[in-house]
Amino acid sequence: MLFSKNSHHEKFLAGHYTRQPGIRLQLLLLVIVAFFYFHPAAAAEELSSIGLNLMPWPVKDEISGGQFRLTENFYLGGEAKPGHRVFKAGARFMSRLFGRTGLLFEQDYLAAQEINDRTKFFYHFDQPGQLLPGEDESYRLEIYPEKIELTARTDLGLLRGFETLLQLLSSDQQGYFFPCLRIEDFPRFTWRGLLIDSSRHFMPVDVIKRNLLAMSAVKLNVLHWHLSDDQGFRVESKVFPRLHQLGSDGWYYSQEEIKDIIQLASELGIRIVPEFDLPGHSTSWFVAYPEYASAPGPYQIERKFGVLLPVFNPAQEKTYKFLDRFLKEMTALFPDPYFHLGGDEVDPKQWKENPEIQKFMKKNNIPDEPALQAYFNRRLLKILGKYQKKMVGWDEIYQPGLPQDVVIQSWRGQQALVEAVRKGYQCLLSNGYYIDLMGSAEKHYLNDPIPPDSPLTDQEKKLVLGGEATMWAELVSPETVDSRIWPRTAAIAERLWSPAEIRDVNEMYRRLKVINLRLEENGVNHLKNQPMMLRRLAQSEQIKSLEVLAAVSEPIKGYSRHSQGKLYSSLSPLTRFVDACYSESFEARDFKRLVENFIRSRDLRQAKIIETWLELWQVNHQKLVSAESSPAIKEIIPLSEMLRTVSQAGLEALHLIMNGKQADQSWLQAKYKVLEEARKPVAECQLAILPDIELLLGSLKK
Amino acid sequence: MLFSKNSHHEKFLAGHYTRQPGIRLQLLLLVIVAFFYFHPAAAAEELSSIGLNLMPWPVKDEISGGQFRLTENFYLGGEAKPGHRVFKAGARFMSRLFGRTGLLFEQDYLAAQEINDRTKFFYHFDQPGQLLPGEDESYRLEIYPEKIELTARTDLGLLRGFETLLQLLSSDQQGYFFPCLRIEDFPRFTWRGLLIDSSRHFMPVDVIKRNLLAMSAVKLNVLHWHLSDDQGFRVESKVFPRLHQLGSDGWYYSQEEIKDIIQLASELGIRIVPEFDLPGHSTSWFVAYPEYASAPGPYQIERKFGVLLPVFNPAQEKTYKFLDRFLKEMTALFPDPYFHLGGDEVDPKQWKENPEIQKFMKKNNIPDEPALQAYFNRRLLKILGKYQKKMVGWDEIYQPGLPQDVVIQSWRGQQALVEAVRKGYQCLLSNGYYIDLMGSAEKHYLNDPIPPDSPLTDQEKKLVLGGEATMWAELVSPETVDSRIWPRTAAIAERLWSPAEIRDVNEMYRRLKVINLRLEENGVNHLKNQPMMLRRLAQSEQIKSLEVLAAVSEPIKGYSRHSQGKLYSSLSPLTRFVDACYSESFEARDFKRLVENFIRSRDLRQAKIIETWLELWQVNHQKLVSAESSPAIKEIIPLSEMLRTVSQAGLEALHLIMNGKQADQSWLQAKYKVLEEARKPVAECQLAILPDIELLLGSLKK
Repeated sequence: MLFSKNSHHEKFLAGHYTRQPGIRLQLLLLVIVAFFYFHPAAAAEELSSIGLNLMPWPVKDEISGGQFRLTENFYLGGEAKPGHRVFKAGARFMSRLFGRTGLLFEQDYLAAQEINDRTKFFYHFDQPGQLLPGEDESYRLEIYPEKIELTARTDLGLLRGFETLLQLLSSDQQGYFFPCLRIEDFPRFTWRGLLIDSSRHFMPVDVIKRNLLAMSAVKLNVLHWHLSDDQGFRVESKVFPRLHQLGSDGWYYSQEEIKDIIQLASELGIRIVPEFDLPGHSTSWFVAYPEYASAPGPYQIERKFGVLLPVFNPAQEKTYKFLDRFLKEMTALFPDPYFHLGGDEVDPKQWKENPEIQKFMKKNNIPDEPALQAYFNRRLLKILGKYQKKMVGWDEIYQPGLPQDVVIQSWRGQQALVEAVRKGYQCLLSNGYYIDLMGSAEKHYLNDPIPPDSPLTDQEKKLVLGGEATMWAELVSPETVDSRIWPRTAAIAERLWSPAEIRDVNEMYRRLKVINLRLEENGVNHLKNQPMMLRRLAQSEQIKSLEVLAAVSEPIKGYSRHSQGKLYSSLSPLTRFVDACYSESFEARDFKRLVENFIRSRDLRQAKIIETWLELWQVNHQKLVSAESSPAIKEIIPLSEMLRTVSQAGLEALHLIMNGKQADQSWLQAKYKVLEEARKPVAECQLAILPDIELLLGSLKK
Repeated sequence: MLFSKNSHHEKFLAGHYTRQPGIRLQLLLLVIVAFFYFHPAAAAEELSSIGLNLMPWPVKDEISGGQFRLTENFYLGGEAKPGHRVFKAGARFMSRLFGRTGLLFEQDYLAAQEINDRTKFFYHFDQPGQLLPGEDESYRLEIYPEKIELTARTDLGLLRGFETLLQLLSSDQQGYFFPCLRIEDFPRFTWRGLLIDSSRHFMPVDVIKRNLLAMSAVKLNVLHWHLSDDQGFRVESKVFPRLHQLGSDGWYYSQEEIKDIIQLASELGIRIVPEFDLPGHSTSWFVAYPEYASAPGPYQIERKFGVLLPVFNPAQEKTYKFLDRFLKEMTALFPDPYFHLGGDEVDPKQWKENPEIQKFMKKNNIPDEPALQAYFNRRLLKILGKYQKKMVGWDEIYQPGLPQDVVIQSWRGQQALVEAVRKGYQCLLSNGYYIDLMGSAEKHYLNDPIPPDSPLTDQEKKLVLGGEATMWAELVSPETVDSRIWPRTAAIAERLWSPAEIRDVNEMYRRLKVINLRLEENGVNHLKNQPMMLRRLAQSEQIKSLEVLAAVSEPIKGYSRHSQGKLYSSLSPLTRFVDACYSESFEARDFKRLVENFIRSRDLRQAKIIETWLELWQVNHQKLVSAESSPAIKEIIPLSEMLRTVSQAGLEALHLIMNGKQADQSWLQAKYKVLEEARKPVAECQLAILPDIELLLGSLKK
């Protein structure tokens, strides 16, 4: 009956819209796209087991059975007074419970949080926490049917516990509840960071604030803020105002804004470690002050990306005088005892070509340019010491003669970290946490600052403070940055907080999907910007077929977007399809599990789900080309076509398997060729399901 | 074939998921929901004529034929230097063109915008514009195949022209272009405002900024910023810091932030008129300073809404001394020559009950409380005058004896405006532009500050400066406010800019739908927050059935949400289904047009589209109840059921009409009863399609 009805539609509409071929095609496809609505992901979802949706997973949890039922007479109470970090955290906690449940609680939690007869949720801490590495962040959470108790040594521990409790909110037909349990929890590493690069693309205050909120939701505690680079100097300097006036295109943080952000971070138990990258990555400084560069100016704010030539002149005293005055101002602005001075990727060309510098090196017995950088670092270290700061720098700062009270952040590899630790340096791992490389959450999750096979002694291991995800911003904008950070950084947060043994990837993904939705509560727009971006591309509300394609497409990995024909600059639009795609396709991952299960089990019911999925992708192309006429979509037409082709190959393979048939060798070769072809990037995207189709083909051969 | 395939699916899946009734129901519905994907809105859309998507519509447009093709070597050029208002506007213009098209333009528009050989788009203005009422905002835009010229008397005119040009961007198979034409344009009213209430719910800086950007996109030029009320005092006062410290729960704008916002507004050609509501609506002041109230304290920040008792004491000199010092500070902070002092909704109770005040009135021959308010206003007017500000106030400030250099903002009705104008006052219309009442764009659009039948003389009409949409914030949060302001305020913007004769409602809605999408480019989240809110309600990504219901549901109108059983306070969550619904259902409007056309034409093709739509709504309920188990959804189950019931009634009526049959009288009565029943609000929502179903029934009777 449905079928005949649609045919009917088709006829009368075809007559009506003869001049609009798009509509006719749409109608021809109507029958097939029936599949769309029953999305196969929904079914796969139901297959997974139900567990607590905690991330990071706590050290110890004992479920005691029973529930604490949440009602509108829920009152929280503790020792915090208005204005205190915990009071504000309590208010945010209540507000988020409000928001998620729609309940109108009775308590005016903004006015008072004292303990009284009505208190159901008790929080208690012994002392204010210091925002320092090594500070106690432990907490104990006990949920009973009639009350909830959260206890911590420091108020920082309470903040972590509030987030755990929020993650425990559950519901059933009767309403909302918390499951009764007892959790004891503390972090494995004391330095759990996220780097945000505000230089390559300026990230306005609200980007920083919402990401701080999201960080605190997964217990991260360090924002490493990359504030200067070739493409922009982003901090107001009152001592050298021309730095931000000439070096930022007007996009910088005022000192008031920085204080405001530091205040919020402190309320969330997050340290802010600023980075001013020196002596390289410094073009934007020289727009105002070419006299501190190693080659004569004039300089302009750099638009291109990469390792560029401009570098500070370490051979003249006035450089250090300038940096001393500058660092005096900035070390006062940023209260954290650690201060990051970059130190990475120095191109020695300007040093080599400047005779004054070469003269200086000879005079001072500085044998080569790395040694010159070490000299520069020693000078800066002295300055930082004067202002009571500990220096942090990238791998390259490690050179013979570098004092040991420096923290080395390893971006080049685990081996670099091991070497630095063995030399007695405190270290942070960032290699393997480069989220701008568009890798999978799995890859980051399994990357451990101290892997099971670490050659370090127990004593040495103590020098590994933790790690940092790095959101380098060459190809992210304020619009897309959230979707590059989240949800993958939540998996990194678990690696840095939870016991090393917690490393079940499937279980991580199960929880990550829930956390992914929950993160929206903190204002990050990692999910909600994709449809907006697709609407803008299509200049239409009708984006279903684009969404289907986007769900199985990923930006190409590594830094290969830079070698696909477009020369990106900091002015380039990051509004294309590739920018709208998530860095990791969860749908492809679900599909892969299905295929793997099917190949193992040969269960025809699973084959049917796989078939539905493949059919969905197969028919999408015709829908997309008939619906989308926007020029901005043009570049992905071949990607869409590729999805059709590989899905067709997958379907044929599946049908052979289902029917117990063998594949013809030439047929098989042709299909492999299709896959080979499909591996070529299109519009800087790749289909995430190619390995899964290959699995199907591979299983056929056997 | 499809049908049999699905039956197949259904069987094997039904077996697989016997313990999951949700899945079975989903599959049973699969066939029916085939309709969903081919959304009937898509067809209706195509019925409309294609025209320029300009809003506000310009005074004069002549399409000359031909196109200016947009390519990557598009350069803009004019006399603006970096830092200038127009330079920044040019940069934003280019960035938005980038973003929409994905093109990588060659020009480094951040470095320079000088005119040279490559310039394709020329802008020119004679003089900087003053941000004052009456300033010239006219512009002329000429698009030729080989170049574009934008000319204006002032830079403000250029800003308006940039927006027009952006609205003209079009595309075809070959790419992007601007249609060749000549536009001459200027505003009908000089005061085109939006009030944002930051007191009832605090609106963080980014809310204000993104809405300023959206305002400029539709040529609004006044942000009326309601900064204090019973529920919060939102501005940092350095003279009386306890005002914001005790009166804001910590949610206030620092003076730096206010300056930053004023700066952005100025760059956008938008004036900021602050409002401190006096002498009523002032509880939050008295938390810190009870001594200026008319009744003894202590006072607390008010959480409830309404006309409350606390009011300034106008009978003591110290009140005026305090307000003088306060206004001295604030008039310096806000550069606009106009300053709003509220003056609305004073409850005279505290004045009547305070013997000192009564004594003062007798002594000074003040006959009654309105006269006392007039006295208060005269005193404040004097203070404002001292600081070179003109006073603006609500209707109530008009009392005999009020000097004429005051602007009266009419919220109580057109008649109040006419009366004030006839008394010689400059006036603003807000009555009819109360967007918090959840009315239709149509209603606001047809509401004219000087309606065709205005009794005013031409001379008097000059006193009507314009109007303001008012976004009162009792029931909006930073999360929902954009969706309450937009897109309806764009229709108001057209009323205030375009010639009075432009009032074709269907044509307005055609353009409004396009503008609605385009507004997202300015960062407003009026569209992208709905799915996020539905995901949070459902605690799931699967929100299709909720979206179908939301698309035809509207929050109940007027202030009736306050009388539905929930006592709203400023702490209440605004995260429920009613908050996620748009204030106006475009889908119901499209459907209405379909039904009207069908009733007129009895065209069976239209009947078929109507049928598809009704079937979609009819089946949605079963899908919703099987998919959604979140407690937060519970309250809308009856609404969803109601949609099924009325759609069923509509379907039955439609089938009778299609088959040329008469309706049985008792059947008809039963259906009317269904509609009557459906008019009762559910969860503070109403179905927007009820009048359309009634149309169908009504047409049957005849």
